[in-house]
Amino acid sequence: MNQRMYQLGSKRSVIREIFEFGKTRAQEIGAENVYDFSLGNPSVEPPACVKDTLLKLIEEPDQTALHGYTSAQGDLFVRRAIASHIRGNYDENADENYIYMTVGAAASLTITLSALCEEGDEVVTFAPYFTEYKVFAETAGARLVAVESDPDTFQIDFEKLEAVLGKNTRAVLVNSPNNPSGVVYNRETVARLAETLEKASEKFGHTIYLVSDEPYRELVYGGVEVPYITKFYTPSIVCYSYSKSLSLPGERIGYIYVNPKTEGAKELYLAVCGAGRALGYVCAPSLFQKLVARCVGKTSDVSVYRKNRDTLLNHLTKCGFSCVRPDGAFYLFMKTPEPDASAFCERAKKYDLLLVPGDDFGCKGYVRIAYCVSPDMIARALPAFEKLAKEYSL
Amino acid sequence: MNQRMYQLGSKRSVIREIFEFGKTRAQEIGAENVYDFSLGNPSVEPPACVKDTLLKLIEEPDQTALHGYTSAQGDLFVRRAIASHIRGNYDENADENYIYMTVGAAASLTITLSALCEEGDEVVTFAPYFTEYKVFAETAGARLVAVESDPDTFQIDFEKLEAVLGKNTRAVLVNSPNNPSGVVYNRETVARLAETLEKASEKFGHTIYLVSDEPYRELVYGGVEVPYITKFYTPSIVCYSYSKSLSLPGERIGYIYVNPKTEGAKELYLAVCGAGRALGYVCAPSLFQKLVARCVGKTSDVSVYRKNRDTLLNHLTKCGFSCVRPDGAFYLFMKTPEPDASAFCERAKKYDLLLVPGDDFGCKGYVRIAYCVSPDMIARALPAFEKLAKEYSL
Repeated sequence: MNQRMYQLGSKRSVIREIFEFGKTRAQEIGAENVYDFSLGNPSVEPPACVKDTLLKLIEEPDQTALHGYTSAQGDLFVRRAIASHIRGNYDENADENYIYMTVGAAASLTITLSALCEEGDEVVTFAPYFTEYKVFAETAGARLVAVESDPDTFQIDFEKLEAVLGKNTRAVLVNSPNNPSGVVYNRETVARLAETLEKASEKFGHTIYLVSDEPYRELVYGGVEVPYITKFYTPSIVCYSYSKSLSLPGERIGYIYVNPKTEGAKELYLAVCGAGRALGYVCAPSLFQKLVARCVGKTSDVSVYRKNRDTLLNHLTKCGFSCVRPDGAFYLFMKTPEPDASAFCERAKKYDLLLVPGDDFGCKGYVRIAYCVSPDMIARALPAFEKLAKEYSL
Repeated sequence: MNQRMYQLGSKRSVIREIFEFGKTRAQEIGAENVYDFSLGNPSVEPPACVKDTLLKLIEEPDQTALHGYTSAQGDLFVRRAIASHIRGNYDENADENYIYMTVGAAASLTITLSALCEEGDEVVTFAPYFTEYKVFAETAGARLVAVESDPDTFQIDFEKLEAVLGKNTRAVLVNSPNNPSGVVYNRETVARLAETLEKASEKFGHTIYLVSDEPYRELVYGGVEVPYITKFYTPSIVCYSYSKSLSLPGERIGYIYVNPKTEGAKELYLAVCGAGRALGYVCAPSLFQKLVARCVGKTSDVSVYRKNRDTLLNHLTKCGFSCVRPDGAFYLFMKTPEPDASAFCERAKKYDLLLVPGDDFGCKGYVRIAYCVSPDMIARALPAFEKLAKEYSL
């Protein structure tokens, strides 16, 4: 069999290990006593429009059309609804002919990178980064190059970025709001990134594409703006998923939006279609395509995540821990009081706090705390964090 | 951008071209006067259990669990239901730990071939074959080798098969009932195939896997048996999809079943999990996983397809055309009275009969007629076939 695939299938992810430990522990001491902050699974219900729309769609008279194949790039009505939403909110150039419906964020990224990269190319991203980026880049025949972020803000360190850009750089991949840091790139960061990539593209004689992975776009707190990539940099592609905004992670529905102003945009869009075909994606799930078109612009009640963030961030800071303040997503990336994050996680386990070491996200000395959990659980977990802090005399 | 992906995206399939022509023509002369036999889109409604189950699932109190991530290999309850169905009907060894839920048949095949193959391997299949097999094999780094079938029966020509098996053969891919011929492999064919592959595996010193692509398993007419591959050959993998049996092609739901008796089955299953991960499949759509578990063993009313086949086959034979009798699927593969199938299709177009040349399926001198259409349309199309036959003085 294929050895790369066997390795990928047999090496269980650290997150999954911790999650399984949590389930076993819950049987021993009761689920209410285990504080599992390991998974990025939305805890807030889908908005009412999800159930209402499903009920309406299911009653449609033409059941074969409802569940039938759509065109490979997605149903035209659906792509029009999404393009109109993007035009109204972010980018007046959005056009249904540059939208490709996908089976969620992982598909959006694998397809986009496969469309862009040739064997030996490099995809640059910024640590901390979502653990699967490495896998997606390698599927596209490319190598993931991670650049350390500014440790105080987790915004981009441009000196470090410039040092890695080169003749093999095909794309730069950003994720804002970020998993695992929760940090949102501000306008200044995005504008400077655009400028840097323009110069580098000229210097190295080929276009460096900017790919924006943004399943957390709507999960921002306190009116923070998430700058829209295509408005700052022309050779850009937005990868979106409804998993978090509509709390539908299992339904696998998202899209790719190729900036129509990009030189060769039409050809690039065709390469996206080709990559979808090559990877075995025939079309995105039909019923959920029709659903997202009717729920466009709606989100789950994200105020719950904001409250969770505030409660947890305040308490952790009071205990003496330190985190960069997350403006979005539903993660806190906390500095560990000892350099070995895995050792810290083991100590946390004694108090039944399940956290994920940052090592897998390309950052040593941190843990990820996924606060997409019930506010009750957070309240119950606070004393455990306090005890953990005391162990380190914080 | 990636040139392979661009080519795959920009080269429109012949089937799609014909379908688009049909839509334009329908605007000119009315849809009822265009006889479009180009697409393999089920025309029969999903069975009642689909709507009933969806309505029940949507009312489940825990909406976040309903639409949440399942484990990567699929929900345990779902895999148990499917394993139990396979045990009860086909293979008493079936086990949920060897079932991997997929985003439909194309995903099942791309994942399976990626798990099996290394760069430079060969995947052997039998012409006529589904056009996308070549793409799926190439994504896995392999080369598709097509073997001509016995022209009288479209069963396997074993001399020709033996001539291509070699040290690079990693897998043999079968599709019964077949798209586009409608032919079902009988027990004799499958038993001899197993024997041939056992000998070849021994001769070349490595296992040759048998992959069975069977989305049409339940679409058979007149009590014809579809032998279950794992009962005949141990190193075997079944790729299944609910697209045709439940008329849900747009929802993208199927599974891979690795024969647990295969040497190294556990490792192979892990490679399947790894390939799913590498190709960007996080999990199969959650709602439809739960749906198929509750509709297991149910099918659409396939008697409609049988009537269509009988009407069309009788009429075409009466007109003087010749086809191998299809026992399953919803396709007729008809010999063209002139050697150039494309020229024949052009002539057919004059009578607004839209057929697909066999060249794309690896067989010259044939056309595919997809009879998954309304019986009314077939009745209206009969005179057109008659006129076409007269042109050739049949």
